[in-house]
Amino acid sequence: MGAVKTKRMPRAVREQQMLDAAVRTFGQRGYMAASMDEIAELAGVSKPLVYLYLNSKEDLFTACIRREAAALTEAVRAGVRPGLPADRQLWDGVQAFFAHTAERPDGWSVLHLQARTHGEPFAAEVAAMRAEIVAFVTRLVAVAAREAHRDPDLPEDEVAGLAEALVGAAESLATWANATPGVTARQAALTLMNFAWAGLGDLMQGRVWTPPAEPV
Amino acid sequence: MGAVKTKRMPRAVREQQMLDAAVRTFGQRGYMAASMDEIAELAGVSKPLVYLYLNSKEDLFTACIRREAAALTEAVRAGVRPGLPADRQLWDGVQAFFAHTAERPDGWSVLHLQARTHGEPFAAEVAAMRAEIVAFVTRLVAVAAREAHRDPDLPEDEVAGLAEALVGAAESLATWANATPGVTARQAALTLMNFAWAGLGDLMQGRVWTPPAEPV
Repeated sequence: MGAVKTKRMPRAVREQQMLDAAVRTFGQRGYMAASMDEIAELAGVSKPLVYLYLNSKEDLFTACIRREAAALTEAVRAGVRPGLPADRQLWDGVQAFFAHTAERPDGWSVLHLQARTHGEPFAAEVAAMRAEIVAFVTRLVAVAAREAHRDPDLPEDEVAGLAEALVGAAESLATWANATPGVTARQAALTLMNFAWAGLGDLMQGRVWTPPAEPV
Repeated sequence: MGAVKTKRMPRAVREQQMLDAAVRTFGQRGYMAASMDEIAELAGVSKPLVYLYLNSKEDLFTACIRREAAALTEAVRAGVRPGLPADRQLWDGVQAFFAHTAERPDGWSVLHLQARTHGEPFAAEVAAMRAEIVAFVTRLVAVAAREAHRDPDLPEDEVAGLAEALVGAAESLATWANATPGVTARQAALTLMNFAWAGLGDLMQGRVWTPPAEPV
């Protein structure tokens, strides 16, 4: 156990310390391999205190997912200032996303890998967060399309599809960037913007990609 | 059990029937809720025969993942004919991907949702398939960049990042298309190409998206 601190501390502060230790341990070891002993030691508390506060390994993991999901959506929201041009809003959101996932690689691992790998209740928590981010991006894309005065408007399904594509691309790039030495958050953000905005930008201007004529 | 067929049939044929039934059941019910009784009944065989051939629920699920992963990578590979222009190769691959995932929604659910939700060994099977597809797409993007005579060449990290973005976007769109009534495979493929190729296409021509000047 080493030096277990016993000095008085508000419960909320202790809980955050436990969650910090848990996110780090789940993110690095994986959910199955992570032990409550290790988490308690890393948090500098006794194992019974972890159980007293957070009940079980499952509940502790759920609390980690909720905290990290809330922090990620908040970071993206806070990064975007309404009123700016659409590509600027998207760039700010994309930068905020990659900065956050690069700063908190264990949190991202919990959300994107661990939570989806260990059963439906955990996966459902992450699916709810993802749906919120997709809805946010869908609004951004719809605003961009309106700004570009597309006439006729992009169909709703097309906008929803583009938002799904963008979020999927961002998830994939964040996981890749965190696993690839030397790839910075800014570089990942630029790759996504070049991939997504140049494409979306063309689309907003009515420059669609057209398939080759099919053989008859 | 109903009408359990007992007539003689080669083992390989029976196994494929069991896998068909298992993919459908795992894909629709989820791994946890799927029962071996249901799978045996759907396959028209006895439960002991399923265990005799495929050993356990875990092994049966692993066999499903392997079969569906091989079928998906084969469909994408077969769709792409080398020698054509890069956007045509990409379009053919993207069409083959969405046609396959739309035709086999249960197989896609097993690969993208179920296998990643139920523990590391299953997730590792899918990760191996994904790495293969990313490598394939990376080569396509690198060829496209060479065709466009980009000078200097796109850095290797940039090409790898673009391939990750494209695969992430495709995964996300396939799941969305299968869950959204009225969205066809062709429509999802066109959305991805408009999102990806217009962007990649600009990039290949050296038309990069540039971030706004940051406040000093």
